[in-house]
Amino acid sequence: MTTQDLISEIHKKKSFLCIGLDVDLNKIPKHLLKEDDPIFEFNKAIIDATHHLCVAYKPNTAFYEVYGLRGWKAMEKTIQYLNNNHPEIFTIADAKRGDIGNTSSRYAKAFLEDLAFDSVTVAPYMGKDSVEPFLAFKNKHTILLALTSNQGAFDFQTKTVNGKALYKQVLETSKSWSNSENLMYVIGATQAEFFTEVRQIVPDNFLLVPGVGAQGGNLQKVCKYGLNKHIGLLINSSRGIIYASNKEDFAKVAAMNALELQQQMRDIINDLV
Amino acid sequence: MTTQDLISEIHKKKSFLCIGLDVDLNKIPKHLLKEDDPIFEFNKAIIDATHHLCVAYKPNTAFYEVYGLRGWKAMEKTIQYLNNNHPEIFTIADAKRGDIGNTSSRYAKAFLEDLAFDSVTVAPYMGKDSVEPFLAFKNKHTILLALTSNQGAFDFQTKTVNGKALYKQVLETSKSWSNSENLMYVIGATQAEFFTEVRQIVPDNFLLVPGVGAQGGNLQKVCKYGLNKHIGLLINSSRGIIYASNKEDFAKVAAMNALELQQQMRDIINDLV
Repeated sequence: MTTQDLISEIHKKKSFLCIGLDVDLNKIPKHLLKEDDPIFEFNKAIIDATHHLCVAYKPNTAFYEVYGLRGWKAMEKTIQYLNNNHPEIFTIADAKRGDIGNTSSRYAKAFLEDLAFDSVTVAPYMGKDSVEPFLAFKNKHTILLALTSNQGAFDFQTKTVNGKALYKQVLETSKSWSNSENLMYVIGATQAEFFTEVRQIVPDNFLLVPGVGAQGGNLQKVCKYGLNKHIGLLINSSRGIIYASNKEDFAKVAAMNALELQQQMRDIINDLV
Repeated sequence: MTTQDLISEIHKKKSFLCIGLDVDLNKIPKHLLKEDDPIFEFNKAIIDATHHLCVAYKPNTAFYEVYGLRGWKAMEKTIQYLNNNHPEIFTIADAKRGDIGNTSSRYAKAFLEDLAFDSVTVAPYMGKDSVEPFLAFKNKHTILLALTSNQGAFDFQTKTVNGKALYKQVLETSKSWSNSENLMYVIGATQAEFFTEVRQIVPDNFLLVPGVGAQGGNLQKVCKYGLNKHIGLLINSSRGIIYASNKEDFAKVAAMNALELQQQMRDIINDLV
């Protein structure tokens, strides 16, 4: 998928919502546990109920790996279901991978070619040659961690490097890498005041924004400082949508919560024009 | 496995060699491709031929994920084979994971509890709460990336943060985290001159050292600056051992190359006493 396809979809749906598919068998409705593949059945129901309200889905790989082979298979089925039924949806493997080039190229192939996600999240610590194998995929997108939504973001990311915060150094350095037109960044919603400075460095790139909802981030504040002329934001919500109910009505309640966010986004988009 | 168990094994075998099990189906002997699970059969043959010469094995997860379900299953079988037949061997899941705490705890469970590796490599960028779920496992070990062996290490890791290089800041900050007695670090062999400064900050921790061999690192130089009173080094070699031959004799040739490294290590250990 190209960036332009994503932008078109955002305007069509008046939504820049991304739904995190972080499936926990202890939290999903009990009646699904009878199914052969409860993880996939849960995802399928959530997707069926919400795909018209969001533009992206983001399975976090940790939630699948913790179930071993069964989890990996459920992730495969989920991305296949999305690619077969909703090719207009932007898919994100939230894998936070990164290794020496020879090794990163295998992660890139696994997620962008074989599983055929549109994008993958990547950790910046190992530098350019650890990220380039992901950037090499045409019409695929690398989403580099810059400023994350957790408390630990203050351990290193906001420390001063060469006169600027490390996360800004990551933005500055990485935007010059090859194919960086297909480069997006993770910027946590819990630190909305940082978006102004982020936009000074990367005015055009899409930002994937976790931390709205359960982690305390505020949608309006993020949009005030983070929107650009192409919208340029994907706001992720996971727990606030998928675990809104753990009863038989879970998909319906998830859709209600997704609708509430989408309507806020619709108003924000309408206010822009 | 405790750190003391690892140290005992090093002295018993006079080896601090770690063998990287980075299986590439394009590089393994052709006759193995007829097997049901060529990846596992390759690993089993390497392990059978070399386990008396090394103290650790390190599968890099990228090399398994690139083969999807089949790869994940081969990784499961490999760690089970090691745990069942060679419980004295220190096992490393080279996964370079790291996410917000709620998510990292799932990676920690997947690798340290379910797959039952002794240790896992973790990326430091997301800070303390992304690493603590790994540290929480008793008699398991977290191996934090500090200074890696690739060119990209110079993009961020060696940049100056608060008056010192970022990788040194990672060492300083992380060594105060809870349970840091079970904390090791990745320090690349390609930058042997940095070991003196690393040892000033973390004199007692084990260092996992990739980059000897194919990547150009030098064993003697690393040992000169990196050894501590408990040895404190695990030197990894992957391609230099496992792909020394791609013929039917591959395991025998791998053992010869492992023996050569082990003999150098034996001499280094003997010189210490």
